[in-house]
Amino acid sequence: MNKNIIYVFLLFLAVTLKTIGQNHEHIIINKEQLSYIKENLGQAPLFDQTLAKVRAKLDAEIAAGFDVPIPKDLAGGYTHETHRKNYLLMEQAGSVYRITGDEKYAIFIKEMLFKYAELYPTLDLHPATRSYSRGKLFWQCLNDANWLVSVSQAYDSIYEWLNNRERKLIEAQLLKPFAEFLSTGNPQFFNRIHNHSTWACAAVGLTGLAIGDEQLVKNALYGLEEDGLSAKAHDNDGALIKSDTKGFLAQIDGLFSPDGLYSEGPYYHRYAIYPFLLFAVGLENAKPELEIFKYRDGSLLKSVNTLLAESNEKGDFFPLNDAQKGMSIYNSSLISAVDIAYYYGGRNPSLLSIAKTQDAVNLDATGMAVGLDLPKAEPLVRKSMVIKDGANGDLGALGILRSGDGKELIFKFGSQGMGHGHFDKLSYSFYNKGFEVVQDYGMARFVNIEQKGGGGYLKENTTFAKQTIGHNTLVINETSHFNGNTDIAELHAPYLNFKDISNTNIQVISASDTNAYEKIKMTRTLFMLDDSFFDNALTIDLFKVNSEKPNQYDLPLYYQGQWISTNFEYQIPDNLGKLGSANGYQHIWKEAESTLDGSNMQFTWLNQGKFYTYTAASHQGDELIAGRLGATDSNFNLRRDPMLIQRRKNATTTSFASITETHGAYSPVDEKAINPYSKIKSINIELDNEEFTVLRIKTDDKEGVLAIANKDFDSKHLVNFKGTNLKWEGPYYFNLMENKQ
Amino acid sequence: MNKNIIYVFLLFLAVTLKTIGQNHEHIIINKEQLSYIKENLGQAPLFDQTLAKVRAKLDAEIAAGFDVPIPKDLAGGYTHETHRKNYLLMEQAGSVYRITGDEKYAIFIKEMLFKYAELYPTLDLHPATRSYSRGKLFWQCLNDANWLVSVSQAYDSIYEWLNNRERKLIEAQLLKPFAEFLSTGNPQFFNRIHNHSTWACAAVGLTGLAIGDEQLVKNALYGLEEDGLSAKAHDNDGALIKSDTKGFLAQIDGLFSPDGLYSEGPYYHRYAIYPFLLFAVGLENAKPELEIFKYRDGSLLKSVNTLLAESNEKGDFFPLNDAQKGMSIYNSSLISAVDIAYYYGGRNPSLLSIAKTQDAVNLDATGMAVGLDLPKAEPLVRKSMVIKDGANGDLGALGILRSGDGKELIFKFGSQGMGHGHFDKLSYSFYNKGFEVVQDYGMARFVNIEQKGGGGYLKENTTFAKQTIGHNTLVINETSHFNGNTDIAELHAPYLNFKDISNTNIQVISASDTNAYEKIKMTRTLFMLDDSFFDNALTIDLFKVNSEKPNQYDLPLYYQGQWISTNFEYQIPDNLGKLGSANGYQHIWKEAESTLDGSNMQFTWLNQGKFYTYTAASHQGDELIAGRLGATDSNFNLRRDPMLIQRRKNATTTSFASITETHGAYSPVDEKAINPYSKIKSINIELDNEEFTVLRIKTDDKEGVLAIANKDFDSKHLVNFKGTNLKWEGPYYFNLMENKQ
Repeated sequence: MNKNIIYVFLLFLAVTLKTIGQNHEHIIINKEQLSYIKENLGQAPLFDQTLAKVRAKLDAEIAAGFDVPIPKDLAGGYTHETHRKNYLLMEQAGSVYRITGDEKYAIFIKEMLFKYAELYPTLDLHPATRSYSRGKLFWQCLNDANWLVSVSQAYDSIYEWLNNRERKLIEAQLLKPFAEFLSTGNPQFFNRIHNHSTWACAAVGLTGLAIGDEQLVKNALYGLEEDGLSAKAHDNDGALIKSDTKGFLAQIDGLFSPDGLYSEGPYYHRYAIYPFLLFAVGLENAKPELEIFKYRDGSLLKSVNTLLAESNEKGDFFPLNDAQKGMSIYNSSLISAVDIAYYYGGRNPSLLSIAKTQDAVNLDATGMAVGLDLPKAEPLVRKSMVIKDGANGDLGALGILRSGDGKELIFKFGSQGMGHGHFDKLSYSFYNKGFEVVQDYGMARFVNIEQKGGGGYLKENTTFAKQTIGHNTLVINETSHFNGNTDIAELHAPYLNFKDISNTNIQVISASDTNAYEKIKMTRTLFMLDDSFFDNALTIDLFKVNSEKPNQYDLPLYYQGQWISTNFEYQIPDNLGKLGSANGYQHIWKEAESTLDGSNMQFTWLNQGKFYTYTAASHQGDELIAGRLGATDSNFNLRRDPMLIQRRKNATTTSFASITETHGAYSPVDEKAINPYSKIKSINIELDNEEFTVLRIKTDDKEGVLAIANKDFDSKHLVNFKGTNLKWEGPYYFNLMENKQ
Repeated sequence: MNKNIIYVFLLFLAVTLKTIGQNHEHIIINKEQLSYIKENLGQAPLFDQTLAKVRAKLDAEIAAGFDVPIPKDLAGGYTHETHRKNYLLMEQAGSVYRITGDEKYAIFIKEMLFKYAELYPTLDLHPATRSYSRGKLFWQCLNDANWLVSVSQAYDSIYEWLNNRERKLIEAQLLKPFAEFLSTGNPQFFNRIHNHSTWACAAVGLTGLAIGDEQLVKNALYGLEEDGLSAKAHDNDGALIKSDTKGFLAQIDGLFSPDGLYSEGPYYHRYAIYPFLLFAVGLENAKPELEIFKYRDGSLLKSVNTLLAESNEKGDFFPLNDAQKGMSIYNSSLISAVDIAYYYGGRNPSLLSIAKTQDAVNLDATGMAVGLDLPKAEPLVRKSMVIKDGANGDLGALGILRSGDGKELIFKFGSQGMGHGHFDKLSYSFYNKGFEVVQDYGMARFVNIEQKGGGGYLKENTTFAKQTIGHNTLVINETSHFNGNTDIAELHAPYLNFKDISNTNIQVISASDTNAYEKIKMTRTLFMLDDSFFDNALTIDLFKVNSEKPNQYDLPLYYQGQWISTNFEYQIPDNLGKLGSANGYQHIWKEAESTLDGSNMQFTWLNQGKFYTYTAASHQGDELIAGRLGATDSNFNLRRDPMLIQRRKNATTTSFASITETHGAYSPVDEKAINPYSKIKSINIELDNEEFTVLRIKTDDKEGVLAIANKDFDSKHLVNFKGTNLKWEGPYYFNLMENKQ
């Protein structure tokens, strides 16, 4: 052939191949959506700003050049962070290329993919050996899956722009083997009902859609038929691996409750929601017949609302189970989730107010829709809720009581949450205007800070943060719930006794657990009263435990703030000793102790300019211990946070009752202490039997009775109490009146 | 006389008395100023807003009624807080009455004054006995003086509106005896060079002006000629009472340095500036011939600028000496000070930007001027400064080094600051964007929180907060500077060796002390480099001590934040013991210890999303101690803050050298750790003699020499160092170059 003929042939070939490429159905932005975006450029300021910002960042990175290093480091280290940066840049470059058509971004992706296609076939497993599923680019498959979720999108974005040879090279040397490694190559990673497998399925499924490989998509949706996994295998976090069901759809079934609660807690919900939604968007475009967003009564989109509800007034997620504090609705996953939920979920205008505070949108049709509709934003009103847990909604719940003035009481009585679950049945935490008043410790981990154990879980996460004594709930005989065994904990959950969240004046949730300790029933009833009822906001906590055998009971209070005063004497030691030797007790220094005389104990602290006073009933001989975290902490991994423990020894069935009053204010700028004293005089348990518990509450000028039914909650009740008959219908009776004395 | 005649006579009398009243020269808002305010109402939004807010508050209080209780409580208690509220309300009601002419406010003041006039003659000393100068309404004269400063203004405001009988009653039964009690009745309170006496003189002087009593004014300006005070008497804070000079003018001479530095520190400066300026305004109106604002080269107005310079980027004052953290330029005294400094001090437009952030103005001519000029506001640029201390400017100085990007290094080498001074010669603290990185503890006191020792100074203030080990400076042989003796400390101060604050790339201050320890000279040289010089911002600290006898040297570092990592091994104990038994050491738990091998020690911490690494040269056998505050703290008065100590035993003349690098970033929202490792490899002292100290600094890719002259700072220097000659002129030589190795 002469040169001209060759040229004509190559031109023909290129056009043919381009045509083939042009039949490609895009997974994230389909053709109609692309037109919609392009038509509206310049009309949606937040979209335009986001695009400009991302573009500027990409331009700087492209100018600086990139590196594709040989994998070596753990999280926080150079190779880890560089590969992480690379996939995020590729994903963004893909979106920007689609929207702007500027080839610069396509070239950037192609060149980087070529480098990866060159590197990947040479890689063995990552040299770090600590993961149950070692990756190739990263120390764990999970990060490899993060990479592929982004890169499959990036590849999809430039698919039509690449020529056939380029596509073939990238798919054969990189994407397909990468997806196979994460699925058939690692069934213990792929075939679970767990966030790891959600990432795996989304990565493999999106890759299947992007390269048109039906087998990959099928595996992603339905899991691997054969996996050869042992029924006893556990992952690094102590969770069982083997599951009866598998695949993406089974994960939607298994990981969310019918109320959209994600079993592991909001921190991991935030982490899993991205692959869940991204793969769903891909499926909606490529396989609309699946109606993925309607799957299981719209589970995926419903779960976004639930996730948002699990954030406090400042937008930080409640740090339930393994969770790093400070993770919030401003995380990029939430930008994605909010925009997708808005676009595919009925255009709820309260999501727009979240998008506004996030100050960024997705660079796709969902982000454009949000950007265009932003003026219609309505405030997100966080409400009191009881969110059922468990795939069938029968594994307890998460209760959130909220007042109109920014108080949030979080009551955890749901399922274990697998390997990231904490042994904290019936625990609670309490916020005021987004600040912690009674904290949940969260996890002992500094995510991606390499110096802190490679950025992974620290041993104190197991030895302290997961243990029951690390939480605001009852510890019996200094052992953790379920003896700290996740497999057993997974089988059980507490249950709701009753709730009333119908008005904010007085709200209540009551729940019981009968499995955390053998032959022991624990019942906690938490009330939240706003200041419309009494002068100040109150929480009332009644913790009842039923046991035939005598035990030691420890009820901790992880208050946050400055110790102000107590109404009891205490002794401080000359040397600080540890509170115990195991189950988390070895991490607590004993700063002070007291033996109570049976009258009420009161403790006042100051936090973020507000006073709080905890008033508790006591038995004569109860011990009060002031603890400080940090013992047996050889790498300074724990925060030196304070706590109190009310300890009752050698007791069978018994109850603990307390009130926490929020009162007054203090500012160091004007140095005025407003109402620094509690108005609560006492709380006493006056009757406590199988049927009823009756509390008497005295304040400076009021006196009241709180009676709680211990069974037949909805019935009519009659208690003869101190000579008078208390009559009521429903789970509780409360009356606080001016004291005439 | 028949009734008509009596009526005519009374009318005549009333008119005459009104006329007498109308000749009254007002002390805060004179007649021209009142016209100026009235003419401009509606023109200055911030003034109008402030007026509306104050008026609304007053209306609510007037509607609620007031109480004038019999004095009983300490600070924070009901009677204390009620009398405090009363005088603040009266002062504000006075201003609002003058401006609006609404008699409601005059009536409010009159009725309250009548109640006080009824109560005051019945009062003996306040029942609490802890003050060296017990008051009548309050536990200390100081609070009585606060009351009178406000009430004299309030009285002045309604002077013309009152009739003669009313005036006579209020003056004879309340104001005059009150002013006499605070002056001739309490010379130990009145006749000092101290903020207590500033309040006393202002109270007495303003009262003198308001009621036209020249003797009171004279006493206020010049003090009592005879006071019969002992030369040895001390106040509650351990400061000497007797002084050679006395009176308001002498206080201006004695309490401010020529640079406007207030001897006790910014916290008390903020407290004293209000009576200083208010009495000055009164004098400017009543005795313009005094030219009080020009007195001593304009000391008073100059000091406002100095006070503002002693606040960090967030507006919080540096907590030097006794100071509660969080006190800031948003305190009401500062609103007053800024407005007065603006009006009487040449209308500096940068003060307007402070007024803007304060969001309120004085309800007088100064506030109106600020309100009208607000659109001309220019930003306040906080600069590096060396502010001379001492009445003659010869008692050391306060050094503040600032970078363009929000870093502030505060170097304290001034006078003791009397009874509120801390024993912390040559100490420093370090801020980044207003957040503490290396903290000054401040004081051990919760001002006006009654539960905490009546809101007064706690014993831990003396036993810890004032002690040298509570600060970032050298402690020798576990004793505090001047053996903790204020009288001796008052006699001495460190001195400046050299400074260069001419450009922000590299700034330096060097100072020495020869009195804090007998026959020992301490020299500290602090450099601050911004990131234009090296990749990141650095502070370099060289602490040299000259001693013929061997000592133990402890150099503490009160870092704030989360411990990340060290480059050395350390041991943690099974039980926490105290670091010592006295001089503050008894309040520190020993959390970890290490013996250094003579190579560099490195310590990295994370604070407010930034990493910091401290790299220090060591001698073999140096000990490194990780301490935690809170030992011997029987009322939980101390914050459980962390610290490190580098300890060198049995050394004579020696030096400590360290670098603190600010690097990277971390956010829990995106969980990315950017540059979590220090680039500093080492800092070593390579030469250290009487003439020079030469440091070698190595980073990942650079190597440098920092040579410091130890005498003849401004001369030409030549050091033969490792075979080559270093030649330079001036106090130091610094060169950091690419490492070619």
